[in-house]
Amino acid sequence: MIGIFDSGIGGLTVVKGIMDTLPGYDIVYFGDTARTPYGTKSSRTVIDYCLQNTEFLLNNGAKMIVMACNTASSVATEAVRASFDIPVYEVVTPAVDLCLEATKKGIIGVIGTRATIASGIYERKILEKKPQAKVYCAPCPLLVPLVEEGWLKKPETKMIVKKYLHPLKVRQIDTLILGCTHYPILKNIIASKIGKRVAIIDSSIAIATQVKAFLEHNPVLDETLPKTNTARFFVSDITPQFQKTAKGIIGKNLDLEQAEAAAFF
Amino acid sequence: MIGIFDSGIGGLTVVKGIMDTLPGYDIVYFGDTARTPYGTKSSRTVIDYCLQNTEFLLNNGAKMIVMACNTASSVATEAVRASFDIPVYEVVTPAVDLCLEATKKGIIGVIGTRATIASGIYERKILEKKPQAKVYCAPCPLLVPLVEEGWLKKPETKMIVKKYLHPLKVRQIDTLILGCTHYPILKNIIASKIGKRVAIIDSSIAIATQVKAFLEHNPVLDETLPKTNTARFFVSDITPQFQKTAKGIIGKNLDLEQAEAAAFF
Repeated sequence: MIGIFDSGIGGLTVVKGIMDTLPGYDIVYFGDTARTPYGTKSSRTVIDYCLQNTEFLLNNGAKMIVMACNTASSVATEAVRASFDIPVYEVVTPAVDLCLEATKKGIIGVIGTRATIASGIYERKILEKKPQAKVYCAPCPLLVPLVEEGWLKKPETKMIVKKYLHPLKVRQIDTLILGCTHYPILKNIIASKIGKRVAIIDSSIAIATQVKAFLEHNPVLDETLPKTNTARFFVSDITPQFQKTAKGIIGKNLDLEQAEAAAFF
Repeated sequence: MIGIFDSGIGGLTVVKGIMDTLPGYDIVYFGDTARTPYGTKSSRTVIDYCLQNTEFLLNNGAKMIVMACNTASSVATEAVRASFDIPVYEVVTPAVDLCLEATKKGIIGVIGTRATIASGIYERKILEKKPQAKVYCAPCPLLVPLVEEGWLKKPETKMIVKKYLHPLKVRQIDTLILGCTHYPILKNIIASKIGKRVAIIDSSIAIATQVKAFLEHNPVLDETLPKTNTARFFVSDITPQFQKTAKGIIGKNLDLEQAEAAAFF
């Protein structure tokens, strides 16, 4: 199975991308809703959580891991790769690759959680591949709670998005990376506030394309992955709010399973 | 020592109240910043967390516990009292008592997190003591992230507060309980949006007054509490954002200590 985890609900945008790009592949998802969000927490704590989440998914049949959370990808990828001998995919690199294909002027904006932006990972990865690029980053910590509340079209959300994007807009970026798996859910508002000429890079699509290419080049692993169109959704805490927002992302009711608390506390 | 815990930072308003009301008493605080917030999580998860937090404080010298979090108080008080043989104070009852002294018409509003409001505890406790009261409740889930971001005077915060309070305002409440320890930090905005004639009940002051009265009536316990003007602040995750907001509440830099992860994971 393809194991996918996130701090909570945002990673379901990646699940949706993988389901659309790799139809039929079995998926096991873990959303760490008992400890969400990750984006306001320290690297040390996020690393601890990611190691536990990976172990949980391996114990539930995962043969490869997709870290469907930019905060986790930004601070914990090396620790997870060092600790587990399986392919580990993260959402930062595919978004950077897509962004570098899209940008014309090389003036790039990145939005993400406080932890993702503080890690400096997008800037570092972009400049490694395109040293003359200009990268402007803006943390947008309130967007995750706004999405989780389902405030997707409210005027307050539009005002907050506009305020966050303002410093990027004045820099005249031509490409904007949505550096958080929650943000694709606000894509329309983000697009209207940053302006039509700016290419928007959605990491949930970027990662799915990269996982597909990886499996095409690794038929031995690919053959071990069951393709019975089965998806299991584990969470560390089941709440009605999660059920509701999850339905909005995946497009149908999910049969959520409670992950055993002992694995996490 | 007086042990005080909260899901994160909001409980510091209670610490401030207790420091002002019981000067010199030694305090040990635990803020569960690695798992914050509690208000969006299920009762089962919040109860697990509160039992762990209480054990941690007892292991660090607490002789009594103040649950400085309305969500914890609403769903976990019975579980904590059943599990530990020490005095356990919660923030709901003192706020209800103060509210019943203040209300003239008996039309009462309560704001809190989703979990606190869903528990129905304020309504139940008010109606037990004043069956003819009318109680209107409104969950305000975005106020906690707004406070934690330090957006205390921004126009978006004012708009969101106004939107949340609107259904209470049209009911012509005369008393409003701030049913979350984060909300006293937004007291000025809340007061201006709900109107001058509405009495605002701040549970951080209510609980401090009740703890003081309890200790006056329990001199044997009181004598065991050290009064060397010492306060220790433990958190499960140290972040720069916490340091900054904490300083705003307590009025000085706090010397934060990392609580051992093993106690919580």
